[in-house]
Amino acid sequence: MRIVVDAMGSDNYPIPDVAGGVLAAREFGDQIILVGQQDMLERELAKHDIKGLSVDIVHAPEAISMQDKPSAVLNSKLQSSIHIGLDLVKTKQADAFVSMGNTGAIHAIATLKTLRRIPGVKRPVLTAIYAITGHNMIFLDIGANADAKAEWLEQFALMGHLYALTALGIHSPRIATLSNGEEEGKGNQLTKEAQERLRENTYGLRYVGHIEPKEILLDKCDVVVMDGFVGNIFLKTFEGSVTYITDFLRAEINQSLTYKLGALLLRGAFRKLRTRLDTREVGGAPLLGVNGVVIIGHGSADSYSVRSAIRLARQAVIGNTIETMTAKFAASRLVADTTS
Amino acid sequence: MRIVVDAMGSDNYPIPDVAGGVLAAREFGDQIILVGQQDMLERELAKHDIKGLSVDIVHAPEAISMQDKPSAVLNSKLQSSIHIGLDLVKTKQADAFVSMGNTGAIHAIATLKTLRRIPGVKRPVLTAIYAITGHNMIFLDIGANADAKAEWLEQFALMGHLYALTALGIHSPRIATLSNGEEEGKGNQLTKEAQERLRENTYGLRYVGHIEPKEILLDKCDVVVMDGFVGNIFLKTFEGSVTYITDFLRAEINQSLTYKLGALLLRGAFRKLRTRLDTREVGGAPLLGVNGVVIIGHGSADSYSVRSAIRLARQAVIGNTIETMTAKFAASRLVADTTS
Repeated sequence: MRIVVDAMGSDNYPIPDVAGGVLAAREFGDQIILVGQQDMLERELAKHDIKGLSVDIVHAPEAISMQDKPSAVLNSKLQSSIHIGLDLVKTKQADAFVSMGNTGAIHAIATLKTLRRIPGVKRPVLTAIYAITGHNMIFLDIGANADAKAEWLEQFALMGHLYALTALGIHSPRIATLSNGEEEGKGNQLTKEAQERLRENTYGLRYVGHIEPKEILLDKCDVVVMDGFVGNIFLKTFEGSVTYITDFLRAEINQSLTYKLGALLLRGAFRKLRTRLDTREVGGAPLLGVNGVVIIGHGSADSYSVRSAIRLARQAVIGNTIETMTAKFAASRLVADTTS
Repeated sequence: MRIVVDAMGSDNYPIPDVAGGVLAAREFGDQIILVGQQDMLERELAKHDIKGLSVDIVHAPEAISMQDKPSAVLNSKLQSSIHIGLDLVKTKQADAFVSMGNTGAIHAIATLKTLRRIPGVKRPVLTAIYAITGHNMIFLDIGANADAKAEWLEQFALMGHLYALTALGIHSPRIATLSNGEEEGKGNQLTKEAQERLRENTYGLRYVGHIEPKEILLDKCDVVVMDGFVGNIFLKTFEGSVTYITDFLRAEINQSLTYKLGALLLRGAFRKLRTRLDTREVGGAPLLGVNGVVIIGHGSADSYSVRSAIRLARQAVIGNTIETMTAKFAASRLVADTTS
C-alpha cells in the first residue's frame, strides 16, 4: 500500500508529518510517500533511522498555509504538496492522501480540481471521528456545507454508513440525525425532511431517528448526520466546553498546595478522561464523497496523530471504501438526478 | 410589586414553587400571587411562616404537565395555572409571571392567547441566561423558532439588547451572532444576512460580529443571537458536555480510595466550578417579545431557583423592560412591515 503524507501540512511542518510517516512505515509496513520541499524533507528525514522502511520523497516546491483561502489556491500554487499529493492518488500512483493541513483547501482541490466526486454524490462532506463513548462515532457534515438540502443529508447518511461499515468495522451502524428533540414534530424544516427520507430509505440504513446532543454522549448511535453549520457549532461547542472545564480546574489547582496534592492523587482519573477526549488516537477523519481516500487531521497534530491518521487511511484502503461507495451510489436511485 | 408564581410548574410542584415564592416575598418584600389548586397550595403554604409577608393564592383548578403539547393546551385547560396566571398579568392585576413549567405551553399561551406580542415584534423568543464567564450572558433564540429569517434574528438582537440594558444592568451590551467562524465569508445564509442587517442597524446596537462557540466561553459578548434550532443544539451540547465530564469523573472517583481522597482535597475547586456552571443563581430566563414580563425556569428547579427567577422578573419590572421594548419597536422601522 502506498500512502501519500502531505509533509507541509501541520502547524509544525515538516517535523510531526515526517516523524508520523516514519512511525507508520515501521508499524504498518506501508510505503509512505512524503510530499513537500525536497531539501527540507531530506534534512528532516535524515534525523530518523529508516533502514528497511519504505519512505520516499516527492518534491512539491509550493506550500499552502492555513491562512490561504480555498478559492484562492484552487487554481494557484498548483505545485503545492496538496495539489501534487492528491494528484498522485488520482493517477493511481498512490492509494490514499493524508494531511494535517488547510481543510478548506484540501476539500476544494480534491472536489473541484483533482479527485472530483464519486459519480452520484452531490456534495462531498467533512467528517469528524470521536471515541468519546469508548468506540468510534462519525459526525458529518462538520463544515463543508453550511447550507444543505435534505437530499444531501440523506447522502451524508449513506456515506457515513458505508464508511463506518467498510473502514471502521462497525457491523450495523446506527444512523441518527442531530436535532433539538427526539419527539415527533421536533426539528427544523431540513431535519424533518431528512428524517422522512431516511425513514423511507431503501439502502438498508439502520436509521434510529433524531438524536439530541446529550444523547449522543450516551452512545446511542454510530453515525450522526447534520448540515455543516450545525455540525461545526456542535463540535466546537463540545471542544470548547471541555477546554473551558479543564482550563478552569487547572487554574484553580495552581492556586493552592492542597489542590495540587488532590490533583496529584487524582491524576490517573484525569489522565483517563484526557485519553477519552483525546483526538490523537483517532488522528483525523475522512473527506467523504471524493473519488479517493483522503484523511484530514488537526493542524496541531503531533507525530502520533499523523501515524493514527495514516492508520485511518489504510483501513479505508483495505476496506475498499471508495469502491463500495462507487458501486452503491451507481446502484442507488440518488444517481438518477445528479444535476447539481 | 405583584408577581405571579405558577405554583403547579416545577417537577415537584407545588413544593419548590411555594417555598421559592415565600423566600422571594421575604427577601424582596414583593406581593407573591401563587396560582394553582387552592387546597393543595393552602396545605403547602401552611408549612411556612409567612407572618408579615404578602403571599396570596389564586385558584386554578387545572394544571398543564410537561407532557402536554402546546398546541393541545392552547384552547383547552383554560383554567390552568398558566392561563390564569398569564391573564392576571394581561389584565394588570399583576406585574410579572414566573413559572418552572412547560416552556412550549407558556410560549404558546402567552403569544397566541393572553399577553400577545408587543406591536412590531414578529416572533417572541426563548432565552437562556448563563453566568459561565462570571457575569450574565443572554442567549436567544434557544428553541422557539426552529426555522428563522434574518429579520427575526435582527429583532432578537434588539430584544436581547433592550433586556440586557434594562433588566440585567449591562451598560452597553455586546451583541454577537453565533457562527461557524468569525472570518469574512463564514456563516450560513441566515447568519450572513443577519450579519449584514446588524452591521447596518440604526438602533444603536453594539454589534461585534460572528462569534464561535469557544469564544463565547471567553467572555467576548453579552448577547448571543441565533435561530432556535442552532441555539437549542448549542445549549444542550454545552450542558451535555458538562454532565459527561462530571459524570465520568464521579464514576472514576468512586472506584478508588486514593481518588476519593484526592477529590476531597479538591472539593473547593469542584464546588467553585459547579457554582460557575450552576443555573440556580440565575433561576430562569425571559420569554421576550410578548406584552408582559414572563420568566421561565427549569422543571428541576428547587426553591432557591424559583426565588432567583422571581428576582429576574422583578428586575425586568423595575427596569421597565416591556415599556422600553414597546417604545423602541414602535419607533423602529421594523414595525413598518409587521405582516407575519
